[in-house]
Amino acid sequence: MPTLLLTGFEPFDGGTVNPSGEVARRLDGARIAAATVVGRVLPVSFERLPALIGELVDRGAPDAMLGMGLAAAEPMIRLEQFAINRAHSERADNDGLAPDDRPLDAVGPAARIATLPLGPVVARLRAAGIPARLSFHAGTHCCNLWLYHALAALERRDRRIPCAFIHLPCLPEQALATPTASMPLDLMVEAVRLVAANAIDQA
Amino acid sequence: MPTLLLTGFEPFDGGTVNPSGEVARRLDGARIAAATVVGRVLPVSFERLPALIGELVDRGAPDAMLGMGLAAAEPMIRLEQFAINRAHSERADNDGLAPDDRPLDAVGPAARIATLPLGPVVARLRAAGIPARLSFHAGTHCCNLWLYHALAALERRDRRIPCAFIHLPCLPEQALATPTASMPLDLMVEAVRLVAANAIDQA
Amino acid sequence: MPTLLLTGFEPFDGGTVNPSGEVARRLDGARIAAATVVGRVLPVSFERLPALIGELVDRGAPDAMLGMGLAAAEPMIRLEQFAINRAHSERADNDGLAPDDRPLDAVGPAARIATLPLGPVVARLRAAGIPARLSFHAGTHCCNLWLYHALAALERRDRRIPCAFIHLPCLPEQALATPTASMPLDLMVEAVRLVAANAIDQA
Amino acid sequence: MPTLLLTGFEPFDGGTVNPSGEVARRLDGARIAAATVVGRVLPVSFERLPALIGELVDRGAPDAMLGMGLAAAEPMIRLEQFAINRAHSERADNDGLAPDDRPLDAVGPAARIATLPLGPVVARLRAAGIPARLSFHAGTHCCNLWLYHALAALERRDRRIPCAFIHLPCLPEQALATPTASMPLDLMVEAVRLVAANAIDQA
Repeated sequence: MPTLLLTGFEPFDGGTVNPSGEVARRLDGARIAAATVVGRVLPVSFERLPALIGELVDRGAPDAMLGMGLAAAEPMIRLEQFAINRAHSERADNDGLAPDDRPLDAVGPAARIATLPLGPVVARLRAAGIPARLSFHAGTHCCNLWLYHALAALERRDRRIPCAFIHLPCLPEQALATPTASMPLDLMVEAVRLVAANAIDQA
Repeated sequence: MPTLLLTGFEPFDGGTVNPSGEVARRLDGARIAAATVVGRVLPVSFERLPALIGELVDRGAPDAMLGMGLAAAEPMIRLEQFAINRAHSERADNDGLAPDDRPLDAVGPAARIATLPLGPVVARLRAAGIPARLSFHAGTHCCNLWLYHALAALERRDRRIPCAFIHLPCLPEQALATPTASMPLDLMVEAVRLVAANAIDQA
Repeated sequence: MPTLLLTGFEPFDGGTVNPSGEVARRLDGARIAAATVVGRVLPVSFERLPALIGELVDRGAPDAMLGMGLAAAEPMIRLEQFAINRAHSERADNDGLAPDDRPLDAVGPAARIATLPLGPVVARLRAAGIPARLSFHAGTHCCNLWLYHALAALERRDRRIPCAFIHLPCLPEQALATPTASMPLDLMVEAVRLVAANAIDQA
Repeated sequence: MPTLLLTGFEPFDGGTVNPSGEVARRLDGARIAAATVVGRVLPVSFERLPALIGELVDRGAPDAMLGMGLAAAEPMIRLEQFAINRAHSERADNDGLAPDDRPLDAVGPAARIATLPLGPVVARLRAAGIPARLSFHAGTHCCNLWLYHALAALERRDRRIPCAFIHLPCLPEQALATPTASMPLDLMVEAVRLVAANAIDQA
């Protein structure tokens, strides 16, 4: 049976919850289309992530691969098409590092492009009544790093599988502290299920 | 049995749905605490609303009164404490009128204050995990008009009952066209039920 | 010769500059239309301001009165028409006080309205190419307090003079720390001169 | 004497002015550091721009090259470090074209990186009191196209000169219609002069 690797992140920057980690946990072991989901929660670490992503690809040999992360002020599901070769953050990651405008890979390309075509996925999310949009900039934090390095890991192993990144809004409970947009977990799970089904279709 | 009058608005400005009207319909006839909800959907009309509000008060003799309306870019439940004596709108209401910075009542006070104390209500919504905030400005559209004229109608009849206004975010389906914050209908209904229970407690 | 009282505020909340204080200093002693400007810089203090405003009115017997303050995220000149009877602030003023949703005056009206008609003033600012807008909500900080208490002081003394409040954006130097809109001091001074000329015309 | 090519754009999307075109006109022929500025105004055209950029490089053989464009909601000077291989616009360009998520160059790299190091330039702008920030996403309109194709033109000709793109805020006159951040033309010109001096230093 085909496998979909679905990763989220642990909480960061003083937060106690990260919707992407919650969705990964909720869908771990689920069956979507004809595939089984392997849900994993990753550390928010510029340094440790590249190796961890490589290991997940090696161990799991997934047939499709989706990363998820939190985009704090975002009101919608946001599908990331580009990952740039850059790390920059004003706030420290969970290892205490805040990279200042430096390349992710000194010899890598300026950017990589998601291998799952995202235009049709956005259309299907919207057809299902879920606010979603296509994005051309995944930021310069660990989410962008995930997509850049996941695509690199697949290239290096010559594995041509669908791979993309999903930015999620805050959970309602996160919007209690600062006035910001949010989306209930159930709606996020429904959205990610739909993206996953599309990724498996393309696998 | 005590009665809570709960009003929402019809769609406006080209929209096909208004969450406040949907919530009013969903809760019409519901029992909250020891009270029965009378849910009504009002026209978005600067001219017709004052008389309609007066009639609802006269006919229903409610024991508590909550207005609801849409605040298009708002990401949270917003409880309105003030209504100012002003009508101003760049966009026409459903009668084609767009008042330009004019008083709602040439001889009325500069503002009126909601008779339901809203600080504790916000605290209870947040304790229930629902993003909510206290607001000091209800705008200058029909929502502000509702609160100003509802409080006027109660004053004129010397009816001292809890009365306030709830601004709701867009529904997810409304956020499909423009990228904006949204909240599912079920969460809105849960929030309004909680506000209503507090209003009845104070009645 | 008629006198225009023009007040700004000192820096607050850790800032080192406040554009409103700078403009007050720059225009102190200036002649605008047929009037002399008396420019004063006030403390950001919920407790001390009411008495200080009263003293300025008593000592100066101004023929027109304009308050100015900073609206940190505002990109335009914003003319305030309403002051509500409320003080609320998440951040402490310069005395360390952060009032939590409490009335400015336990027996005062719910709001007061600026006595300088602001619609035409906005039109003249815009005709001069200066981004400006009419506002119906002055917030719940010391700016709103200024307008509420200045109008109260004038009422109490039965002095019918033009009185309004001007919110200014950040200065470019303030926008260095946080990415926010700003306006150079010279353009602010030009804008305030124009508002002042209109206030004196109405005096 | 070395030459700096400095391009802006004509107005678009119904506008009557474009600050980037104004700055290009103002600085055409100016001497900055030891160089002469060649200021040019380009059409907002996804189709015609690539060839026009190539011609400017061929005819002028510039020693440094800066593009400028308008970023409508941006409050600061924004220096663009990345150009992605994508064109996407909801609104038509001046030829009536609105590309829908398509590559700029079917065989080109996923992105190109500005050849003028921008971190130090941002630091100098800020030291001069000018609100400025480093950006990692130039959008998907003609501004991003300019940077992608300018860098391509230089690569193809093996010309290693400093090249980057500057996004400018609205002019105050543009902020009259919609409430948005703005910056006076003189401050923009000062900012662009500073960026240009840095580019010539690196040439």
